[in-house]
Amino acid sequence: RGRWPLGARAEPELLELQVVIESRDAGCHSYPHLASSEAYHLTITEPVAILKAEEVWGALRGLETFSQLVHEDDYGSFLVNESEIDDFPRFAHRGILLDTSRHYLPLKSILTNLDAMAFNKFNVLHWHIVDDQSFPYQSIYFPELSDKGAYSYNHIYTPADVQLVIEYARLRGIRVIPEFDTPGHTQSWGKGQKDLLTPCYNGEQPTGSFGPVNPILNTTYDFMTKFFKEISSVFPDAYIHLGGDEVNFDCWKSNPEVKEFMKKQGFGIDYAKLESYYIQKILDIASSYNKGYIVWQEVFDNKAQLKPDTVVQVWMENNYAHELSSVTGAGFTAILAAPWYLDYISYGQDWKKYYSVEPLNFPGSEKQKKLLIGGEACLWGEFVDATNLTPRLWPRASAVGERLWSSRNVTNLQDAYERLVSHRCRML
Amino acid sequence: RGRWPLGARAEPELLELQVVIESRDAGCHSYPHLASSEAYHLTITEPVAILKAEEVWGALRGLETFSQLVHEDDYGSFLVNESEIDDFPRFAHRGILLDTSRHYLPLKSILTNLDAMAFNKFNVLHWHIVDDQSFPYQSIYFPELSDKGAYSYNHIYTPADVQLVIEYARLRGIRVIPEFDTPGHTQSWGKGQKDLLTPCYNGEQPTGSFGPVNPILNTTYDFMTKFFKEISSVFPDAYIHLGGDEVNFDCWKSNPEVKEFMKKQGFGIDYAKLESYYIQKILDIASSYNKGYIVWQEVFDNKAQLKPDTVVQVWMENNYAHELSSVTGAGFTAILAAPWYLDYISYGQDWKKYYSVEPLNFPGSEKQKKLLIGGEACLWGEFVDATNLTPRLWPRASAVGERLWSSRNVTNLQDAYERLVSHRCRML
Repeated sequence: RGRWPLGARAEPELLELQVVIESRDAGCHSYPHLASSEAYHLTITEPVAILKAEEVWGALRGLETFSQLVHEDDYGSFLVNESEIDDFPRFAHRGILLDTSRHYLPLKSILTNLDAMAFNKFNVLHWHIVDDQSFPYQSIYFPELSDKGAYSYNHIYTPADVQLVIEYARLRGIRVIPEFDTPGHTQSWGKGQKDLLTPCYNGEQPTGSFGPVNPILNTTYDFMTKFFKEISSVFPDAYIHLGGDEVNFDCWKSNPEVKEFMKKQGFGIDYAKLESYYIQKILDIASSYNKGYIVWQEVFDNKAQLKPDTVVQVWMENNYAHELSSVTGAGFTAILAAPWYLDYISYGQDWKKYYSVEPLNFPGSEKQKKLLIGGEACLWGEFVDATNLTPRLWPRASAVGERLWSSRNVTNLQDAYERLVSHRCRML
Repeated sequence: RGRWPLGARAEPELLELQVVIESRDAGCHSYPHLASSEAYHLTITEPVAILKAEEVWGALRGLETFSQLVHEDDYGSFLVNESEIDDFPRFAHRGILLDTSRHYLPLKSILTNLDAMAFNKFNVLHWHIVDDQSFPYQSIYFPELSDKGAYSYNHIYTPADVQLVIEYARLRGIRVIPEFDTPGHTQSWGKGQKDLLTPCYNGEQPTGSFGPVNPILNTTYDFMTKFFKEISSVFPDAYIHLGGDEVNFDCWKSNPEVKEFMKKQGFGIDYAKLESYYIQKILDIASSYNKGYIVWQEVFDNKAQLKPDTVVQVWMENNYAHELSSVTGAGFTAILAAPWYLDYISYGQDWKKYYSVEPLNFPGSEKQKKLLIGGEACLWGEFVDATNLTPRLWPRASAVGERLWSSRNVTNLQDAYERLVSHRCRML
């Protein structure tokens, strides 16, 4: 194997990179999806290198690899080693969670991070777009949600912004899965949508503050039906993330009408049943628009009735292997986020911790292992905004990227360190 | 007290800010120093506000305050409250340590941080310019030091770069104190200066690796005499930081000639005595150029003979109050860095920890308390470069800035939080 300058005439030379997409439907005009093929075969020999892929998504991954194989020497020549690479991802779902509610992220930050995701072969942007703190998504049907719930009129994502993100991602083979988390994490929704949230009580008096979405009113489901109709059409991905995490029952418990409803439904004092009652209706709404859904692990833990193709995202760090075992044991598809909460920072090379995770290291059958379709590096936004997002997320997330793409046996930390150092420089 | 638009004619208006410097020698053409007056008195009334200061350095602080008092309303008017402010710093030495050896920092990063320092009324840039990892300082007498010891020919500070930093700092009332740390932390010096470092031995064989500066050779002191002559003239500040921390004795212990020298000097096997022997010669060299010096606490701990005006920088987190007590009890001036190692990161609002430090909370007399002249927020560079320096240092260092400037009784965390939130926005 020799090093070939791409420019100097006197030496062997690479003149062309042929890209061959073998499937009849290359997929160029569609969106990447969970079953898309990202495999590619790259042969670099003079004078023509060949990149073969079943679908355009594999070709994109191969082009990324090719660009990373080319390096510039001290004299300005571009060199690439003669190479033959057969490559495909280990996991189909390789995501980055960005949170645009705790702090608003300007469009430019999101696009920059889609670039970084492409450099690292991530293929899912999990867009945690709204939460308690703010509602930056500008709804077409319910513009009041962002008018009242965003940090300001400037801190919103217009329909055009959202389309731009989706298209920018698509061109890089990245799916955009929006998360509209309910019934908890919804304080900002309440500002623009009257009667959506549960009024909390102190004895017989309303306190003036509000809890989770009010699960006992028909108007709630009318709203959600219309809202998710919009979301289903705005976001082309086959999946919507419906949240369902960290529902605090205190407010529901304080509300006399909710208590009355519990009695009527025969839920006793088990508010997890009320939560499941709500969630199941939301899941049905999403299903009615032919969308699959992802939920946080509590929805499974609280025994909501889930369609068999539900994807459960495991986020609680405590004993996540056990949770993966339970979720897949019940036949559900799982995504692992628990060990990859990158907003938790500490001194030194914490990427090693992220890199050393073996996602399939949980008790279960081969069939169960196949149900773990991937993972996500999550950068929650409490202490992240445009000023620190990029250096906080990268190159730490690159460690997660390699774990989710490469073979199980690629685990040597020193080798990974050397790759990561070069890769970081490439990303600058 | 009313809010006065500065522009709208129909209302009270501020037409002018008069700056009065009362001292005969305003100091405009000199450098700020430890005894400079940074006090100012600011009176904002219509139509003319008056800023009075003894020296130009106080006027700079007052202008910074004035600029922070002016805010823009939603209609684009600039408003300022009628105010009278009498302000002066609690501590005379308020520093930021930047480390340009572990990672090189481009000039632009340094200048940007001098701006941020001025916004926060810091007045000392402690420039930890060289260390084991690299020697970016381009010496006039010994250009080989950076030729061989810098990360590359591009990763250096030329004499012009250094002058630019010093002048940029001066214009903001900031002293630049360079640190040339010896005898440890000097691996990069050895690359460009033959025989400067101690050869390490394995039994009777040199291992080929090197330890701290070789303290037993006359050539070492010849070199240091010439080198610090240059440093003394390049850096105008009255102080040089001479380091002296973390000297590992293993290599000295392995070297037969060093052992022989120890015997001759009657040091027995107490290598701290050898360290002090070396340090005292270096201190004498600095003194011979009429420079004061700052040293890390080990130099004091190891009982080197110190001139009475030596400044001891306390950095070890363990029981730093006790160390402050010892240092000041022995009559030396002290600077506190121990609780403010900002390169150590953790999740959440760690600024509260930095803010809650009371520097004078150590056992000692009033006279001892007066010997603590200030502190430094240190951003060591192992995991910091131009990509993350600013968001890692600011606004966390602002908490240290307020602690070192404001009165002892300004300690309310909630009030500080609100100021910090506004101040962060001002800095963006």
